[in-house]
Amino acid sequence: MEEIKLIEIKEEILSDNKNLADELRIRLRQEKTFLLNLMSSPGSGKTSLILRTIAALRVRFRIGVLEADIDSIVDSEKVASTGIQAVQLRTGGFCHLDAPMVTRGLEAFDLTMLDLVIIENVGNLVCPAEFDTGAVRNAMILSVPEGDDKPLKYPLMFSICDVLIVNKIDYLGMSDFNMQALKERVTRLNPDITIIEVSCRTGAGIETWAKWLADEVAGFLRG
Amino acid sequence: MEEIKLIEIKEEILSDNKNLADELRIRLRQEKTFLLNLMSSPGSGKTSLILRTIAALRVRFRIGVLEADIDSIVDSEKVASTGIQAVQLRTGGFCHLDAPMVTRGLEAFDLTMLDLVIIENVGNLVCPAEFDTGAVRNAMILSVPEGDDKPLKYPLMFSICDVLIVNKIDYLGMSDFNMQALKERVTRLNPDITIIEVSCRTGAGIETWAKWLADEVAGFLRG
Repeated sequence: MEEIKLIEIKEEILSDNKNLADELRIRLRQEKTFLLNLMSSPGSGKTSLILRTIAALRVRFRIGVLEADIDSIVDSEKVASTGIQAVQLRTGGFCHLDAPMVTRGLEAFDLTMLDLVIIENVGNLVCPAEFDTGAVRNAMILSVPEGDDKPLKYPLMFSICDVLIVNKIDYLGMSDFNMQALKERVTRLNPDITIIEVSCRTGAGIETWAKWLADEVAGFLRG
Repeated sequence: MEEIKLIEIKEEILSDNKNLADELRIRLRQEKTFLLNLMSSPGSGKTSLILRTIAALRVRFRIGVLEADIDSIVDSEKVASTGIQAVQLRTGGFCHLDAPMVTRGLEAFDLTMLDLVIIENVGNLVCPAEFDTGAVRNAMILSVPEGDDKPLKYPLMFSICDVLIVNKIDYLGMSDFNMQALKERVTRLNPDITIIEVSCRTGAGIETWAKWLADEVAGFLRG
């Protein structure tokens, strides 16, 4: 029997990507631009949260949005209608963003004019968790209708995020979603994560989320 | 409203990949190694066809196999047990191979010692069709139990292949699979495609397939 050579292609790809993400983070440090990577399943409310965030923080920070969630430009049109600069990455069905794609997308901004860029990642709880985008902070949304069992099914995503936004809390009474069980599952995976409950529809909790993000950005800009 | 900048990230990635695939093809031309890219859904019979191909052609050509279909090394163990050199690319759940991954995999072979390398691509009818691997010929398997409607659902895959192997024809009597309808659907997408009916289980049609491949490899080696 011939000896089988085994090549760990995935580890190589992820390690190359990590190096490029680290390079991007160093550059963003120099440019003084805070990069937030926002992830979730499709329909959890990424665009709604971004619009709420823009409304809450635009007086304090110069904001840009890098859209990758869908192939149409609906989301970036919503963002652009607020007067905020939006770049739409047409991913054509690719399941995640990696550091080279984000680097390419950021070239379309004048970063010296921006304090905060929010990436709206592809709607997917699996692949985006594996690829470091070069962001300073990773945020994810879980919406109540998705269920409280998601940390059991997608542990990596919950493990790599700095903050979990639980959206659509106005649906809480209408389902058997158990917030306490969710929080226990999430903190077992990731004891340092911040969990913030919001409803992008009613505006509940948005102030808490905006304050968390503003403190992070302000701390970063002070260096 | 801000102007939205639109970046076609997918086209850029595919175009970069195409350039690397063309470079690899030129190198393989110089090395005199014929590269066959074999694609199909999971369970269509890629490994079985490769084992049949090795048995039919090993007296004539020096063969190697680049396995990417699964994460275990079951398939490459089957190949290696024939005494043929096998390299297992652990893709860790990636949905396709691209030209850089194939280039990396081929580094593990001594190509000067090989006439024919068969890539067993990831089991998937979608993404592998989009990424040129650098192969000289693209082959796909459709197995009878998958149904005769697959060209309607995965037209790109059927369009980019030079040869379609219809496997598991021993199942023909047991289903409503319509071979004539399949062939019409396939040739409408790709008038130049060769269609060969086989059963890797019984061995029916393998001689026809082996002759097709042997003629292609011999023509390539004559250059």
